[in-house]
Amino acid sequence: MRLPLSRAECEQWDLTDPLAAYRKEFRLRPGLVYLDGNSLGALTNRAVEHVRAMVEDQWGNDLIGSWNRHGWFDLPNRLGAAIAPLIGASADEVLVADSTSINLFKLASAAAMARGKRRRIVTESGNFPTDLYVLQGLAQLTGGAVEVVEVPREKVLKAIDESTFLVVLTHVHYRTAELFDLEGVTTRAHAVGARVLWDLSHSAGALPIALTQSRVDYAVGCTYKYLNGGPGSPAFLYVRQDLQQSLRPALSGWMGHAAPFEFTDDYRPGEGMARHRCGTPSLVAFAALEGALKALGKLDLTVVREKSIALMEMFIRGVEALPADYGVSLASPREASRRGSHVALTHPRAYELVQALIGHDVVGDFRAPDVARFGFTPLYLRYVDVWTALERLREVFSGGLHCQLPPRRSAVT
Amino acid sequence: MRLPLSRAECEQWDLTDPLAAYRKEFRLRPGLVYLDGNSLGALTNRAVEHVRAMVEDQWGNDLIGSWNRHGWFDLPNRLGAAIAPLIGASADEVLVADSTSINLFKLASAAAMARGKRRRIVTESGNFPTDLYVLQGLAQLTGGAVEVVEVPREKVLKAIDESTFLVVLTHVHYRTAELFDLEGVTTRAHAVGARVLWDLSHSAGALPIALTQSRVDYAVGCTYKYLNGGPGSPAFLYVRQDLQQSLRPALSGWMGHAAPFEFTDDYRPGEGMARHRCGTPSLVAFAALEGALKALGKLDLTVVREKSIALMEMFIRGVEALPADYGVSLASPREASRRGSHVALTHPRAYELVQALIGHDVVGDFRAPDVARFGFTPLYLRYVDVWTALERLREVFSGGLHCQLPPRRSAVT
Repeated sequence: MRLPLSRAECEQWDLTDPLAAYRKEFRLRPGLVYLDGNSLGALTNRAVEHVRAMVEDQWGNDLIGSWNRHGWFDLPNRLGAAIAPLIGASADEVLVADSTSINLFKLASAAAMARGKRRRIVTESGNFPTDLYVLQGLAQLTGGAVEVVEVPREKVLKAIDESTFLVVLTHVHYRTAELFDLEGVTTRAHAVGARVLWDLSHSAGALPIALTQSRVDYAVGCTYKYLNGGPGSPAFLYVRQDLQQSLRPALSGWMGHAAPFEFTDDYRPGEGMARHRCGTPSLVAFAALEGALKALGKLDLTVVREKSIALMEMFIRGVEALPADYGVSLASPREASRRGSHVALTHPRAYELVQALIGHDVVGDFRAPDVARFGFTPLYLRYVDVWTALERLREVFSGGLHCQLPPRRSAVT
Repeated sequence: MRLPLSRAECEQWDLTDPLAAYRKEFRLRPGLVYLDGNSLGALTNRAVEHVRAMVEDQWGNDLIGSWNRHGWFDLPNRLGAAIAPLIGASADEVLVADSTSINLFKLASAAAMARGKRRRIVTESGNFPTDLYVLQGLAQLTGGAVEVVEVPREKVLKAIDESTFLVVLTHVHYRTAELFDLEGVTTRAHAVGARVLWDLSHSAGALPIALTQSRVDYAVGCTYKYLNGGPGSPAFLYVRQDLQQSLRPALSGWMGHAAPFEFTDDYRPGEGMARHRCGTPSLVAFAALEGALKALGKLDLTVVREKSIALMEMFIRGVEALPADYGVSLASPREASRRGSHVALTHPRAYELVQALIGHDVVGDFRAPDVARFGFTPLYLRYVDVWTALERLREVFSGGLHCQLPPRRSAVT
């Protein structure tokens, strides 16, 4: 792969970058190289404006009348429809609601109620903790009727069998960025009559996904990473169209009722995805996400993916060029096609490495015990930023980082 | 009860009102008489400022570093501690998280896992729908191991017996504003070894509540009504201190883990209320609530309750003075001590009545089939506003409202 070889060439590439126009949508402090959009995406001007309008014009002026006047009730479906093309789904297959953890529980518990005689959910050990914890909670609540099988990645395919009703996996691993073979696992699960639930938290908005075409049954995902919806912004959930009417929610709240304003005593699930609404949504948070999604416009994820791969390749080559005694290793797959949109490095003093870089305005994050993660978000990250990041990385090390790191302080970075 | 008898006297009472200073915390359009704070509380200047700071200063400038710098991680506990004195709880007994519906499920499902041989949850038919729907969903998910008994209010006490593990009731009825005897029912439940879960959505912030002193086991509540947290703002949940360590959540997400940043595969519940966090909270929505709670300051709910009763009494007397052929009846208890902070009227054309009043800038709301609700929020409602509301009510009727109402349009008001 041809890549820029000087700061000047980086600047040249940035000028001709087909995504260059996106950067002005974002509010980024000059000088900051933000390599943590895989954890919390950056603020857009549109998010600022949408939140202001929601708070001051809608809530402030129109108060309760906003439910009708400003279409508050349909916002979860409208935002779902805006996310749908980014994950290869139809507008009526996606809903925005609650958190990723809650949505995982919603779909896993609904699948559990429809499981027939099958008892097992297969997942990966070392999956993002909430995916495991939520399934463990569900198993406990069913008094052991549902069983969670956690196996290492290489044993997942084998573990899926006729006792499996659901396979729950994360598309891009939160730590290593390793990509699961979404189509392959889905096909294998279907071959034995199991359904799949994909967690797209680290892939939605970062790379092309074709949920409907891949016949994925269920999915959930986060909107505050590559979709830039703001800290803890509401998550999404997807159910393939032909499965929707038979999937009855266990988390059945009034907003998911077929006729919520009839205030009847018995739950009757709403049409399609609407039934997976539960309580009243946090509309101020929804407004931030709405602005962020508008900033994406008609985003071409093929172009995003190409630039992401180029930025990561540039970074990895720079890391590979470091002296071996610096002790830095690549924890992500070397092959771009097997990697999401962040790069994980290991270093015995990864925490201190991340802190030192933050001190030089290059922001990545730390994952215990020894991983430093760097996210590559092509909408607001330039080639010149990667150049700068590598310069600072070399400076930190040549300043003796590998032997003079500050003492460890806290686990949250 | 002595009440103002003229507009001038209302203005006089407003001048000497001990809560008068609160009104300037709120942004209310001049001329508007807002009698729907029981559905969506009004916007405070502090909510505007807290949201702006969260979005622009924290997310925008400090990005991921805000988790440490701005104490994002502890916000659910901090806001819980701010709500605690308003419901008679200790700071470590309350957490802000998710929606009321989700929190109902959290506590009911956790109670179900600790139920022993008891199978029944007792609740009131005609309770707010989400309370019923959530319990129905839980019963289905347990495959019928948990059974929901829904009985009319007058039969609730009798239905609580040795087969009951949980009683789920709403303190103030959403439609009629009828108050449940919180202490009486709690005592009755405890006498047979059952626990109680009170939904405080229509009472928190409206009247004094003494959860700890009344030995209430569990509670949930809404923050967007009398606490003015904004549309769909995150809800709260309460677990009495001595019950916390034995209550294991079924909705076990990563944020509720004892050490979330260790990223281990097995769920270990956090200390106390922290375990009932689930996914990452929607911090922009939390910011609005934080501002709203700051605007309350050290609120004396005895004073709030006194003024609420006076405002409602004034309104009810005005309604009682209407000619009988207008067809308006009081659907709320006549006795103030048996009523929350809103007044429900019935009228055969209640929907049109509410719409006509909205057309005259007096905003109440409609609940199918024939209820018009008017909420009395003493922090921003003046005696003169009630005077105006009654004038407009008379005008609407004397204009022939009772026989010339516009056609019905939609169920959402």
